[in-house]
Amino acid sequence: MDVARGGVDHCAAIPASVYEERRTRLAERLAGLRLRYLLVTKPVDIDYLSGFRGSAGALVIGPRQPRLWVDPRYTLQAREESRGVEIAESRHGLLRAVGRWARRRRVPSAGWQDAHLTGAEMAQLRSESRGSGAVRWRGVGVLLDDLRVVKDRWEIERIRRAGRLTASVFEQVLHLVKPGVRECDLAAELEYRMKLGGGEGPAFETIVASGPRGAWPHARASARALRAGELVIFDLGAILGGYAADMTRTVFLGEPNRRVRNLYSAVMKAQTRAVRAVQDATPAGEIDCAARRILAKHRLARYFTHSTGHGVGLEIHERPRLGKGETTCLRTGSVVTVEPGIYLEGFGGIRIEDTVLVGPEGPEVLTPASKECWVIR
Amino acid sequence: MDVARGGVDHCAAIPASVYEERRTRLAERLAGLRLRYLLVTKPVDIDYLSGFRGSAGALVIGPRQPRLWVDPRYTLQAREESRGVEIAESRHGLLRAVGRWARRRRVPSAGWQDAHLTGAEMAQLRSESRGSGAVRWRGVGVLLDDLRVVKDRWEIERIRRAGRLTASVFEQVLHLVKPGVRECDLAAELEYRMKLGGGEGPAFETIVASGPRGAWPHARASARALRAGELVIFDLGAILGGYAADMTRTVFLGEPNRRVRNLYSAVMKAQTRAVRAVQDATPAGEIDCAARRILAKHRLARYFTHSTGHGVGLEIHERPRLGKGETTCLRTGSVVTVEPGIYLEGFGGIRIEDTVLVGPEGPEVLTPASKECWVIR
Repeated sequence: MDVARGGVDHCAAIPASVYEERRTRLAERLAGLRLRYLLVTKPVDIDYLSGFRGSAGALVIGPRQPRLWVDPRYTLQAREESRGVEIAESRHGLLRAVGRWARRRRVPSAGWQDAHLTGAEMAQLRSESRGSGAVRWRGVGVLLDDLRVVKDRWEIERIRRAGRLTASVFEQVLHLVKPGVRECDLAAELEYRMKLGGGEGPAFETIVASGPRGAWPHARASARALRAGELVIFDLGAILGGYAADMTRTVFLGEPNRRVRNLYSAVMKAQTRAVRAVQDATPAGEIDCAARRILAKHRLARYFTHSTGHGVGLEIHERPRLGKGETTCLRTGSVVTVEPGIYLEGFGGIRIEDTVLVGPEGPEVLTPASKECWVIR
Repeated sequence: MDVARGGVDHCAAIPASVYEERRTRLAERLAGLRLRYLLVTKPVDIDYLSGFRGSAGALVIGPRQPRLWVDPRYTLQAREESRGVEIAESRHGLLRAVGRWARRRRVPSAGWQDAHLTGAEMAQLRSESRGSGAVRWRGVGVLLDDLRVVKDRWEIERIRRAGRLTASVFEQVLHLVKPGVRECDLAAELEYRMKLGGGEGPAFETIVASGPRGAWPHARASARALRAGELVIFDLGAILGGYAADMTRTVFLGEPNRRVRNLYSAVMKAQTRAVRAVQDATPAGEIDCAARRILAKHRLARYFTHSTGHGVGLEIHERPRLGKGETTCLRTGSVVTVEPGIYLEGFGGIRIEDTVLVGPEGPEVLTPASKECWVIR
């Protein structure tokens, strides 16, 4: 059957043995928690553990072969995409099917993703699995997020390509950046090129924020036209092979005065220093400190209103958070963003961001677009 | 201050009084539940009730002025966008701030969105709001989804424009649909034109599924090239002014044989009949029946593996579900999709979908792209 896998797959398929290994690592963690079963309902975690990339499913990991429930929309896709799991089709609600199955099997206790399931879903599962041998459900918090913190080579390959694509579309569009062009048209160009370049699309709504709108750290691209004498923030990231990259560049239209040059240079220094700190065994909070210290030296700390970064992979925001007091240590194979920024109400903002891999020889920037050519005359 | 509102806003701004009215309707429902306070955490509901369109916030509706907590990323944007609510900035977690506020205010009981909050978030809120005068939290289920089922004229205007844009980009791209073109390139063209046309982007990853891939109801666009003698399904929807539309068209490349003509004609009939049933006071399940009955007559019912449609608005999937046994009645001002389809493993699929408004004079199709010109020679 010549059915291609979902997504625009330019990467080699991940072998079944890799999913097997991931499930083995999970089983070890579960054993440590004295759990024999885990219900996985968060789609990216299902993808991570089985290869199935539909928007809804319920995967039970246990002592026997894993079992994946999907609704009829996804039966064929699940059979094609998943590796090493048994597929069960459910027409009347996935949680209902899982609850009943657990009751029939007399599963004594099982973990569930309490950081993903809603209160209502948990109530439903409890009620469906109630009976003579009621299942005791136990929250596993962010167990799976923690499992995904260190990326394997298949994942790194995908993020690396996503990063290259992200940098490339930005550089392709840079010549269009001039006064009079609307923010939303630039965002459209960037996202269009992500898809043409083999990506599945943007990992989030592309930000193009010019002039005073740049002081909103999460402004959407609007119909505002760019003007000379203003800063413009571009925050973009492509998804490729299921994995995201995340990058921000700031440019100035025209001839920046000394104040703007100093501001840009301060953020650059903060970002460079923080990237350098992305090393194996470094607590995530120290990277945040590294950026903040530099900005404080320039009396800009109070304009840096968010944390320095976050993990990135199957999701655009993953653990760890690179924020104050975060003690989780980075590990070789972690991928994080480093994105200090300053936001001046009524004037604008400057943010510089890269996706950075903790490589065996130190930090490796995966979003290789220039930060030096920021003045557009 | 010349800061434009987020999003590419081609629609007239929604007046503050409309948000006020929506909150009044909510307050009436809350009174019916004997609740004086409600914590709203689902972003689209926050938008609906206040106008704030950030990705995270916590809005408390109560006897006094509503209060919206945001993190520092969103303070400026919340001040700009929100209407009639007090803004509170929180640097250490929104739920923590809300919990503490409720405890300090000695809020006796409050509703929360148990169909949106995760189990872990609910546990956190419970623990933060514990103390001498502990808050009793009560789930309100889908109260807000129900409030949003009937759209006001500001919402209908936005969905209408989103529908027109969706139909228009499909018709713009149709001349590119021919053997040899890749699915993903067509998806890229469609999404690009959504943004150029004033939309914020696609409401979901555009589906272009050719040949046997069409038998996956939710296939992504892949790198597969279109081939002559095959069906191609396009499922797309633009977001405009925050609101989504949803439309599917199926085309055939080449000269369809009688079997394919019969299949297409059966789905067309089923869709037309179901659209006609979209009337005030009709139970949602009856629309599903209308489509299913026609397909059964053509012995195709078993290939129609999903429900006939769903509500659409701020979210791409809203209530009601147009599925078997659904007794909720449509109301004038409801907007739903009507999308019967058949899926033949190894061969392909046919789905036809429109976004339909329950108008005062009956159904009004909001996605006006032709369904007749489906043969591309």
